[in-house]
Amino acid sequence: MIILGVDPGTRTTGYGIIRFEKNNYSVVDSGIIKLDEKKDISARLVTLYSRLTTLIDAWKPVCMGVETAFFNKNIASTMKLGNAKGVILLAAAQHDIQIVELSPREVKRHVTGNGNASKQQVEAMIFRLLNMEARTQDFDMSDALAIALSAGFSVGPGSAAHKTVTQTVSRGKRSAWASYVNQNSDRIIK
Amino acid sequence: MIILGVDPGTRTTGYGIIRFEKNNYSVVDSGIIKLDEKKDISARLVTLYSRLTTLIDAWKPVCMGVETAFFNKNIASTMKLGNAKGVILLAAAQHDIQIVELSPREVKRHVTGNGNASKQQVEAMIFRLLNMEARTQDFDMSDALAIALSAGFSVGPGSAAHKTVTQTVSRGKRSAWASYVNQNSDRIIK
Repeated sequence: MIILGVDPGTRTTGYGIIRFEKNNYSVVDSGIIKLDEKKDISARLVTLYSRLTTLIDAWKPVCMGVETAFFNKNIASTMKLGNAKGVILLAAAQHDIQIVELSPREVKRHVTGNGNASKQQVEAMIFRLLNMEARTQDFDMSDALAIALSAGFSVGPGSAAHKTVTQTVSRGKRSAWASYVNQNSDRIIK
Repeated sequence: MIILGVDPGTRTTGYGIIRFEKNNYSVVDSGIIKLDEKKDISARLVTLYSRLTTLIDAWKPVCMGVETAFFNKNIASTMKLGNAKGVILLAAAQHDIQIVELSPREVKRHVTGNGNASKQQVEAMIFRLLNMEARTQDFDMSDALAIALSAGFSVGPGSAAHKTVTQTVSRGKRSAWASYVNQNSDRIIK
């Protein structure tokens, strides 16, 4: 099962593509789609749509994770982010990809056990959970991978993905998380 | 020259298509794209994109008017409106259509001479300026036609469209508007 995670932005959109196979998650592809700030928003949306559909055609994800709206103080920026997200939702829905919307808090909680985790903590945990050889060096990429992973964890209690995550990381229960930490002291970020 | 005007919404998107020919504007097509409220936003975006590209392919507008972001008190609604607008901008930019963004105030001012005109006033003026035989019976449609007309008026001082509107309606100068009203007493909405 291939899962796509997207972290939308009007300058940089991060994407992460992961595979769930043999009870294990691994990275297939991850990167950023840079959008030319000198171009107007409509031209940037064309680039975003084109790059995203190329990725979808190449990897054929069955499910896409995307964060629910998070809001900028600047309403114009919020609106432009909404434009980018609209194009991302369109590309996914046109390809019959199941869309999983997650709050930033849910993503952090799924991946680190802590809904208030820092970007550094999310990145470090992604690095471990996905057995990556090198860190992404880019929070847009690690955020997108975290969103993909979180979407995998969320696709339903009956799913293999869900069963795995309940074995791997706690899904918010403090006691389960505490016991996981006790059993996995090497995974604690110092 | 064919001009498209779009009034985005996540339930109903109004569109108006007008032709500028022989120093005159006329309606080519207008209507509403109803989006199924029972469906989630991504499915609605697919419908919106599909309907809009069909209209663009049929009429081949050279220019599209769309209102700048107007903001709902509800931030989630603003974001969804942003999603719809993103898809509209995408469809236009993919077809190399010139996008003209206008504030609601500009549209009202272009069409009625008053930036604070009511929807009824805008509709009545559209009815007259476009020589329509019947009113649209729908503010989404009349708003979209007003946006199309306003985009036509805005495409630049050198354009034929611009020259016509300066003959037809005032573009904000109070004195010019006053003289227009004096010369066109039959056009005053009572």
